[in-house]
Amino acid sequence: MTRHITHLRDLGPEGVARVLAQAVAWKEAPPGKIFADKLLAMVFFNPSLRTRASFEAAMLRHGGNAIVLEVGNGTWKLEDRDGVVMDGDRAEHVKEAVPVLARYADALAVRTFSGGVSDAEDELDPVIAAFRAHSPVPVISMESAREHPCQGLADLLTVQKAFGTTKVPVTLTWAPHMKPLPKAVPNSFLLTAAACGADITVAHPEGYELTPEVRAEAEAYAKATGGSVRFTHNQGEALKGAKAVCAKAWGPATGAADSGTAASMSSLGPWMPTAAHMHAAAKDAVFLHCLPVRRNLEVHDSVLDGPWSRVTDEAENRFHVQRALLASMF
Amino acid sequence: MTRHITHLRDLGPEGVARVLAQAVAWKEAPPGKIFADKLLAMVFFNPSLRTRASFEAAMLRHGGNAIVLEVGNGTWKLEDRDGVVMDGDRAEHVKEAVPVLARYADALAVRTFSGGVSDAEDELDPVIAAFRAHSPVPVISMESAREHPCQGLADLLTVQKAFGTTKVPVTLTWAPHMKPLPKAVPNSFLLTAAACGADITVAHPEGYELTPEVRAEAEAYAKATGGSVRFTHNQGEALKGAKAVCAKAWGPATGAADSGTAASMSSLGPWMPTAAHMHAAAKDAVFLHCLPVRRNLEVHDSVLDGPWSRVTDEAENRFHVQRALLASMF
Amino acid sequence: MTRHITHLRDLGPEGVARVLAQAVAWKEAPPGKIFADKLLAMVFFNPSLRTRASFEAAMLRHGGNAIVLEVGNGTWKLEDRDGVVMDGDRAEHVKEAVPVLARYADALAVRTFSGGVSDAEDELDPVIAAFRAHSPVPVISMESAREHPCQGLADLLTVQKAFGTTKVPVTLTWAPHMKPLPKAVPNSFLLTAAACGADITVAHPEGYELTPEVRAEAEAYAKATGGSVRFTHNQGEALKGAKAVCAKAWGPATGAADSGTAASMSSLGPWMPTAAHMHAAAKDAVFLHCLPVRRNLEVHDSVLDGPWSRVTDEAENRFHVQRALLASMF
Repeated sequence: MTRHITHLRDLGPEGVARVLAQAVAWKEAPPGKIFADKLLAMVFFNPSLRTRASFEAAMLRHGGNAIVLEVGNGTWKLEDRDGVVMDGDRAEHVKEAVPVLARYADALAVRTFSGGVSDAEDELDPVIAAFRAHSPVPVISMESAREHPCQGLADLLTVQKAFGTTKVPVTLTWAPHMKPLPKAVPNSFLLTAAACGADITVAHPEGYELTPEVRAEAEAYAKATGGSVRFTHNQGEALKGAKAVCAKAWGPATGAADSGTAASMSSLGPWMPTAAHMHAAAKDAVFLHCLPVRRNLEVHDSVLDGPWSRVTDEAENRFHVQRALLASMF
Repeated sequence: MTRHITHLRDLGPEGVARVLAQAVAWKEAPPGKIFADKLLAMVFFNPSLRTRASFEAAMLRHGGNAIVLEVGNGTWKLEDRDGVVMDGDRAEHVKEAVPVLARYADALAVRTFSGGVSDAEDELDPVIAAFRAHSPVPVISMESAREHPCQGLADLLTVQKAFGTTKVPVTLTWAPHMKPLPKAVPNSFLLTAAACGADITVAHPEGYELTPEVRAEAEAYAKATGGSVRFTHNQGEALKGAKAVCAKAWGPATGAADSGTAASMSSLGPWMPTAAHMHAAAKDAVFLHCLPVRRNLEVHDSVLDGPWSRVTDEAENRFHVQRALLASMF
Repeated sequence: MTRHITHLRDLGPEGVARVLAQAVAWKEAPPGKIFADKLLAMVFFNPSLRTRASFEAAMLRHGGNAIVLEVGNGTWKLEDRDGVVMDGDRAEHVKEAVPVLARYADALAVRTFSGGVSDAEDELDPVIAAFRAHSPVPVISMESAREHPCQGLADLLTVQKAFGTTKVPVTLTWAPHMKPLPKAVPNSFLLTAAACGADITVAHPEGYELTPEVRAEAEAYAKATGGSVRFTHNQGEALKGAKAVCAKAWGPATGAADSGTAASMSSLGPWMPTAAHMHAAAKDAVFLHCLPVRRNLEVHDSVLDGPWSRVTDEAENRFHVQRALLASMF
């Protein structure tokens, strides 16, 4: 079977451990031309800075090459629904595009954000599911509606490097934003941390629950690895003793805003991490954010410019985990 | 003289045979770093998926490199008319841009679709003509107003691989679309098939005639190679016995729509190839389409997902013929 | 200290001489894989043809690689102001983006045009200053608000190749345009020519003065190198005896248009260089323009297609000086 890596379940706790170990080893002693004669086709439905640069760097620095395609920008918009009459603005179907790219490249990397329709649709991850279904070569996710596995792995590698272990108390805290962002990043932090045996606290306002499916999957990993997962609406309590604080904005659970159970985003400014928040965490706590981050809206300058921030290391770790993942795919 | 390849007449039947033979040979036994130290500058006036990925792959997989420029998207819009006062949105003239790129790259690849003005203007192919005129390094077409030579070659390579010869009955059938598309692809199928000695039937509604110049050129090739060319408005009759069915949407002949001789596109839905159409062809018939294809508008799912479809092979063959063409240019 | 090259003052007259000598030497005898294992991240806030192609070519032709990012086009828009609440359309701050890219690449190249606010803001060059401040790896300018150092170097290399020396009379003449363009290119021609000991005449209409800071810097270089700088509103007089005529459109000095001291752009058509203008220069004079050039608005066909034009050589020289600059940075 083709080795796709688009969700944490493609790796499981053992796969995660293997990838992180490889990433750590190669961070110390970089491998040589391990991607010689390999070509990665990168397909972006959405913008990217770190993801694109770190994937390209991983390929190029090890003798490989990458082709970058932006869907709808220089390339046709892609249809992923079965059986439709294609009379709209999507000129090509993934049923053609994916097998064709697989004839030119050794693997496909895909970025496709949530369509913003519902948590239920994100759970199905339709675009990446279509890529998996139609690609005879390995597909790796550069973030999809449900997960951003490379980010989760980079986050946990950062924890590992900071504390020598991932089995520490970590807190994922909701952060404010001006629009409801997808849940892929918080999902992946939660899933990966659980797969790494961390003791995880997730703090978010009422109505911003992660999906039951993701929570159940995380709890299953925690059970297998000796970690733990808990959820709270009390940010202050959640920060106490945390060794790593990972902040991220995300939108309300589907329907929560309409039903009135979700606090309105505009009233949630105090959730923005500041230096005061970080002082509540463990003395040697580190701060994580996947980036891009909106300063002074999502996270305060005092945190990002303070002693806690590991966001640049975390971004560098994208390179390291992706190099390890790509090596395992080829 | 600089060896440009932008129209079938740059190759002629002998050149076509040579390229296909090379493509077949290298499909079996890929060459090594034949493009080492070679740099291809790719200039896109229009979107691309296959073309871009397959050209980049051809260069990168053989030790070469490619630079991708999108005109008007990150790069200045280009003027190609002589003597104009450049006070519009085109900030640079091909008289500067082309010689300059030729100082950086070993060859230029250009994609420039029909401007949609008239068949007569497409026949002159003004942008690609300007590139040829001003480039001291070889220019290769990635589709222009008049022709898409790499597509035609890939189509015939697909026929060759399916039947061991290109001297078989092939049918080019018009297909429906929501807008009048350029004629470069049908032109190139016709010209290349004729240059390969195929027995070609072209079926299209009244008013959708290919230009007299292209038809005359195809007939001249057919005469030289022992092939044949005929045109009909009867799709059903055209499909009978065809070994390869190539479908493509294109617009009415210039003036035909205004003069009332062209059937309106909206009434031509029954021209969409379905499984029933393919059952009318030869028992071992293959189906070709250049892609992108609008499913269930231009071609029915039952064909694209059926046993006849060779569209992915056809797209892969773009890589093989382009590798052979590039090698002949450098 | 990190070796950034974004302004002429980063090189000074000695650095300029060294770069030009290296460029001349490698133009004759190209070096081998001098950029092996080197990765350049190119960040474009603005469009580019020559700059992008020549930088990519310089890296790719010598064993290196380049990643191209277009800010706001496939990549987040970047904020460069300190302390703001990032609730607008700029989703990422250079404080994050620059250090992150520096983890993936060995050097950063940046293009960021003038914001068009004022000469005073251009003098501060805020975006490139932010890149310098936050990058632990070398930053090279691909044109900023104040200067376009690679262009100035390419211009003077063209003079050097034409006359065997840069110590000749050169004239920078203002040229018409339909909109007020930035002053980076004229600034860099002036600064680099002065650093090369040329005898420079700058001709422009009243109200189109270059900034006092740039003029003072050029005069200081001229003093050190034995060159000279003078300014005039009399184009005809300025052309007399000039060995090199460099034309460029630029906008009025800040406030000049409002104060009525700047001639209106629409009345300045006669400033457009024509063959007649070039006949007024030295018999063996060469014509320079950075490109893109709007033909018959900014410069007449008779000059660009005449015997004086070296604009293609000048563009090729971008490759040569950038190769030398990059080599000095790594």
